[in-house]
Amino acid sequence: MIHPTSRVLVTDLRQHLNQTVSVCGWVNTHRLQRTMQFVLVRDHTGTVQVTHRRAGDRDLLEEALEQVTIESAVRITGRVVDNPVVKLGGLEILPERVEVLSRAEAALPIDELTGLEQRLDWRFLDVRRRPAAQLLFAVQTTLEQGMRAFAYGQGCTEMHTPKLMGTASESGAEVFKLGYFDRSAYLAQSPQFFKQMAIAAGIDRVFEIGPVFRAEPSFTSRHATEFTGIDVELAWINGVEDVMAFEEQMLAHAIAQVSEQHGEEIREAYGVEVVVPKTPFPRITMAEAQAVLRARGWDPQGVKEDLDPEGERGIAAYVRKQTGHEFAFITHYPTGIRPFYHMRPAGQPDVTLSFDLLWKGLEITTGAQREHRYDVLLQQATEKGMSTEPMQDYLNCFRYGCPPHGGLGMGLGRMLMVMLGLDSIREATFLFRGPNRLTP
Amino acid sequence: MIHPTSRVLVTDLRQHLNQTVSVCGWVNTHRLQRTMQFVLVRDHTGTVQVTHRRAGDRDLLEEALEQVTIESAVRITGRVVDNPVVKLGGLEILPERVEVLSRAEAALPIDELTGLEQRLDWRFLDVRRRPAAQLLFAVQTTLEQGMRAFAYGQGCTEMHTPKLMGTASESGAEVFKLGYFDRSAYLAQSPQFFKQMAIAAGIDRVFEIGPVFRAEPSFTSRHATEFTGIDVELAWINGVEDVMAFEEQMLAHAIAQVSEQHGEEIREAYGVEVVVPKTPFPRITMAEAQAVLRARGWDPQGVKEDLDPEGERGIAAYVRKQTGHEFAFITHYPTGIRPFYHMRPAGQPDVTLSFDLLWKGLEITTGAQREHRYDVLLQQATEKGMSTEPMQDYLNCFRYGCPPHGGLGMGLGRMLMVMLGLDSIREATFLFRGPNRLTP
Repeated sequence: MIHPTSRVLVTDLRQHLNQTVSVCGWVNTHRLQRTMQFVLVRDHTGTVQVTHRRAGDRDLLEEALEQVTIESAVRITGRVVDNPVVKLGGLEILPERVEVLSRAEAALPIDELTGLEQRLDWRFLDVRRRPAAQLLFAVQTTLEQGMRAFAYGQGCTEMHTPKLMGTASESGAEVFKLGYFDRSAYLAQSPQFFKQMAIAAGIDRVFEIGPVFRAEPSFTSRHATEFTGIDVELAWINGVEDVMAFEEQMLAHAIAQVSEQHGEEIREAYGVEVVVPKTPFPRITMAEAQAVLRARGWDPQGVKEDLDPEGERGIAAYVRKQTGHEFAFITHYPTGIRPFYHMRPAGQPDVTLSFDLLWKGLEITTGAQREHRYDVLLQQATEKGMSTEPMQDYLNCFRYGCPPHGGLGMGLGRMLMVMLGLDSIREATFLFRGPNRLTP
Repeated sequence: MIHPTSRVLVTDLRQHLNQTVSVCGWVNTHRLQRTMQFVLVRDHTGTVQVTHRRAGDRDLLEEALEQVTIESAVRITGRVVDNPVVKLGGLEILPERVEVLSRAEAALPIDELTGLEQRLDWRFLDVRRRPAAQLLFAVQTTLEQGMRAFAYGQGCTEMHTPKLMGTASESGAEVFKLGYFDRSAYLAQSPQFFKQMAIAAGIDRVFEIGPVFRAEPSFTSRHATEFTGIDVELAWINGVEDVMAFEEQMLAHAIAQVSEQHGEEIREAYGVEVVVPKTPFPRITMAEAQAVLRARGWDPQGVKEDLDPEGERGIAAYVRKQTGHEFAFITHYPTGIRPFYHMRPAGQPDVTLSFDLLWKGLEITTGAQREHRYDVLLQQATEKGMSTEPMQDYLNCFRYGCPPHGGLGMGLGRMLMVMLGLDSIREATFLFRGPNRLTP
């Protein structure tokens, strides 16, 4: 009887040459010949060849290897031996024990040719069988931890604000409504009001990563009804420039971490280069961006004050040509397309102290200095035709001394999508949620 | 004209003796005498005295200090001078410029005598004015980052699983339902099914911090309808013991971080000692726990197989007396009170390979090895009278090779509540949500 040893990861096998170890993983492929059985076993760190020379009599080992199906979860116990002929690391395992911990049904529901939607139906298999998909979540972990570490270093406190709200205050149109005992609640479409409450609560700098919910019937490659938001809010700023400076440094830090830890793997798996951005990022006002684009023939229907996706790509290309930079801050968005709580520069009621950040032509962030003066805030809400009653709790925060502050929100999936050059945010999310997709 | 210098935190003032600096904060108190004006300004790092000697003529400075209200947000620019008589750090600021950035209304809606519910109505002021409440969020940040750092070191990937679900699969009774375009969706009461999907997707070890939603009409001091959950799921375990070992080490690591960074402040603000727990934590089976309790006269009505809060406190006291330990794992919960997906030991269908973790007598975690064998899982679901159709996506994960795995979920607010000795989870949450509270 051979007892299983403690698990060794495939990537560490060479350290165990000529020892008996256990490897845990999935059957990637098997090739059964008359005299030899070859099974490739894959874990999250690599793939190893298991080689069994058939004895004259069929033994239990031979039987097990004969019957094992692709994607079965197995534990193989055996001796690690050097074999320069083997492509996978020049070594193989000579099995002494084969345990099928969970047998896969013989026919897998997806393969390499399966389209996106059906892959999403079987997302666990889709992610498991594609090392590039596995890599994405390692990159996600590094990216967000890079941002978090930077934020902590800058004195941020990690907050978890509620996703359940009593009123659909920020913008009623895009909010999910739910039954809440004998009344209704709404899902937060961003932590905006709550992170500002944290500022009013004396939390000097707020950092939050959490889900945000958008009841928009958008079917584009870059929208989801639920996604992971990264939010920052900074108290006592001197202006919106402080927010942009924070963001560009945070991104440069986090992207440097990704480049260092995964740059090579990303190049291999996705064919893209992770470029660590130089700071400061280029800045261009919306007015200037529009002038540049219009001079180049951009004239979208129905988009007067904003940039449409084509405009975003156009201005990003322009900035890149001018500066070589993948990022571009678009600043001073017109008042008409920004929420009431964005601050406006003194004497310039038509624009806001706000920005979007484009990365390779896609918007990944919206940010602004917030209006912290109660009377001005009320006036701006009234101007926008907002009813102040449902947001009284929010407005109260400005009645008892609220410091100047500003912040930003970004989408984690969008960042990964842009960084890895993915066609759709569906590929950058573990379990995508859209108007037509609530499963798996 | 005096230009504001860049902001200096109160805690750093001594490094700027005899320099002119700007301090940003809230007016804590002011004392206006005939010849002198004293204003205490508080930021998140401390409080400083601003001392102005009145000139014969009323100047702008005097006017500003005269009119400033408690809790106004101010920026004071002035010279930092040594003054051993001053209690607050033996220094004071002689102001040269006083800017009221946001004036507070004269009468604050809460004070030191205000009850909990009304304090929660004005949570931003409640947190801002109590240094102990400020400290709580610093501790929260350290605690969760301590757990995260440990988990990363153990090879965990940080996942963000969806909170929107197409079916109320895990347990229909306690789930919030919402309108989702032309159909319904449900809010995840835990990431349970999704983190298991991540295991099936080849993510070796899953770590997630995110909101969980419970539609329970519970009004106790330890329940909330929304709270921050910390979830771990580990693939390829040899047994539930691996999960418990992971948890106790994670907690010991994180609590050590809290003790090191905040132990003294916590002692001062909350009067409790943060004890770094020794590993392993004590373990006791539910059967043994019940025997111990019943021998001591515990005989609750309607609680046959489980522990009620009194039982939890009782067994925790017993374990503490026996071992000196604040923590206790209760293991082998009866099958009847555990979900269908908990694994049962071979030949013992009446108990599960599960545990709760008590800390100072309060349950902070539930964990288990999960049943990964498709046929056994189906059978256990059927036994519990579950309909398998709504959870087909979950069950599919077990059809194509799912490794043995197990994990745990814990509540961040409960941990803080126990650690700091708070009476209610309402105090351990930034913005509490309960059946009667959806605001602010």
